[in-house]
Amino acid sequence: MGPRWKRKGAEAKALADPMSKIVSDLRTSLMLSNSQGILSGRSVLLGADAAQTELLSRACFGQPIITAEKDIQWFELSMEEGFYLCYSLRCIKIVGEDKRVKDEQQVWKYMTSKWVAFPVFFKAYSHLRMKNWVVRSGSQYGVDFVAYRHHPSLVHSEYAVLVLSKESGDANGRLRVWSDFHCTLRLCGSVAKTLLAINIDSAGKGVTSPSCLDSYEVEERTVTRWTPEECRENQIVVENRTK
Amino acid sequence: MGPRWKRKGAEAKALADPMSKIVSDLRTSLMLSNSQGILSGRSVLLGADAAQTELLSRACFGQPIITAEKDIQWFELSMEEGFYLCYSLRCIKIVGEDKRVKDEQQVWKYMTSKWVAFPVFFKAYSHLRMKNWVVRSGSQYGVDFVAYRHHPSLVHSEYAVLVLSKESGDANGRLRVWSDFHCTLRLCGSVAKTLLAINIDSAGKGVTSPSCLDSYEVEERTVTRWTPEECRENQIVVENRTK
Repeated sequence: MGPRWKRKGAEAKALADPMSKIVSDLRTSLMLSNSQGILSGRSVLLGADAAQTELLSRACFGQPIITAEKDIQWFELSMEEGFYLCYSLRCIKIVGEDKRVKDEQQVWKYMTSKWVAFPVFFKAYSHLRMKNWVVRSGSQYGVDFVAYRHHPSLVHSEYAVLVLSKESGDANGRLRVWSDFHCTLRLCGSVAKTLLAINIDSAGKGVTSPSCLDSYEVEERTVTRWTPEECRENQIVVENRTK
Repeated sequence: MGPRWKRKGAEAKALADPMSKIVSDLRTSLMLSNSQGILSGRSVLLGADAAQTELLSRACFGQPIITAEKDIQWFELSMEEGFYLCYSLRCIKIVGEDKRVKDEQQVWKYMTSKWVAFPVFFKAYSHLRMKNWVVRSGSQYGVDFVAYRHHPSLVHSEYAVLVLSKESGDANGRLRVWSDFHCTLRLCGSVAKTLLAINIDSAGKGVTSPSCLDSYEVEERTVTRWTPEECRENQIVVENRTK
């Protein structure tokens, strides 16, 4: 199943305006303004000027929040998004509620304390983002993420992503029984997405510091229904016979 | 969400031909012919004459099997269906591959040895069948059963049923994480079914004999999405104001 563009010309528009360039521009802009994200529960709040607001929207990071402030637009980032900008792109600093800048180790400690599965989910999120996929929450479809080839205004999400992990408790415990498989595949089929199972193997490297992430192994599998009619060897037989 | 009849007049036809009567006729017919089901792996094979074939089809038990035999139509029953006819309706005997009739205790032992979750699934199946619901496999929708108000030729299935159990390992481990909930509810919504979670509490009564089933407690819950717009108290406020 290929990408489903939302309108004529959308593919050309996406090709002319690559996501890597948009994220790179966002990164430069945030670095130049010494941007700081503020930890708030399981979110990171980030203030943006007009240009950054446009770049955050085009790169699909966070959700804009309506406030009374006129000069600054606030965005609520997920923990994965906040940590990606801070640790992977190194373009924002993260401060605690005490307004003091936290180093990477402190941010990591905060996030893993809030959410035990954070390392595994962050690895999956950053793995896809690094490849210039736009990654958003998949809760609407009962999966962890959905992945878009470009901005959601141009293209439908192509993959429904479930994050799995061999270590129990690390991830979400999905796809362990057939009925769950059937349910997920049937739903993915009805919304024209391919199920992408990302298995993260932390290889016993633990979660003590974000540098552990480098050792995590990522295994990607797309899961599709097996349709006997489409998998028969008739075609090959016919080919051989006509030779 | 009410029943969705498949055509005009289907509801009247169902009312004139109640499922309880069809199952009762099937029971009488099977008893009179001393019918025997044959254990075969995780199925029970049942031979039927022409009248019984029609009654089995109308009552929706098993799947007909194509064979070369002309006078007898074979049906493949699931373990729940076979045990329901044998133990709950007491209208068939079950024999092993050695052709010897097994008593209820022996059949029970065979089925629980083939499938550790059999007691819990059978309790849920028989609970719905006793109330004259037609119960079929839900694997197409990633659930355990689907339940029809009458024959599937007249009405769409109304409930997607998941069988849950407090004792881990007893049932299928579904609905334990939010993403699974979201996935299942989204799918149920798109196929116009209500999710029915049947929780079986075996109350520590064990599985030593089928008489344990009488002590199992059954808790039924329908699960629906909470839509804020539909749940606001505005209407009540308006009513109070206009008083």
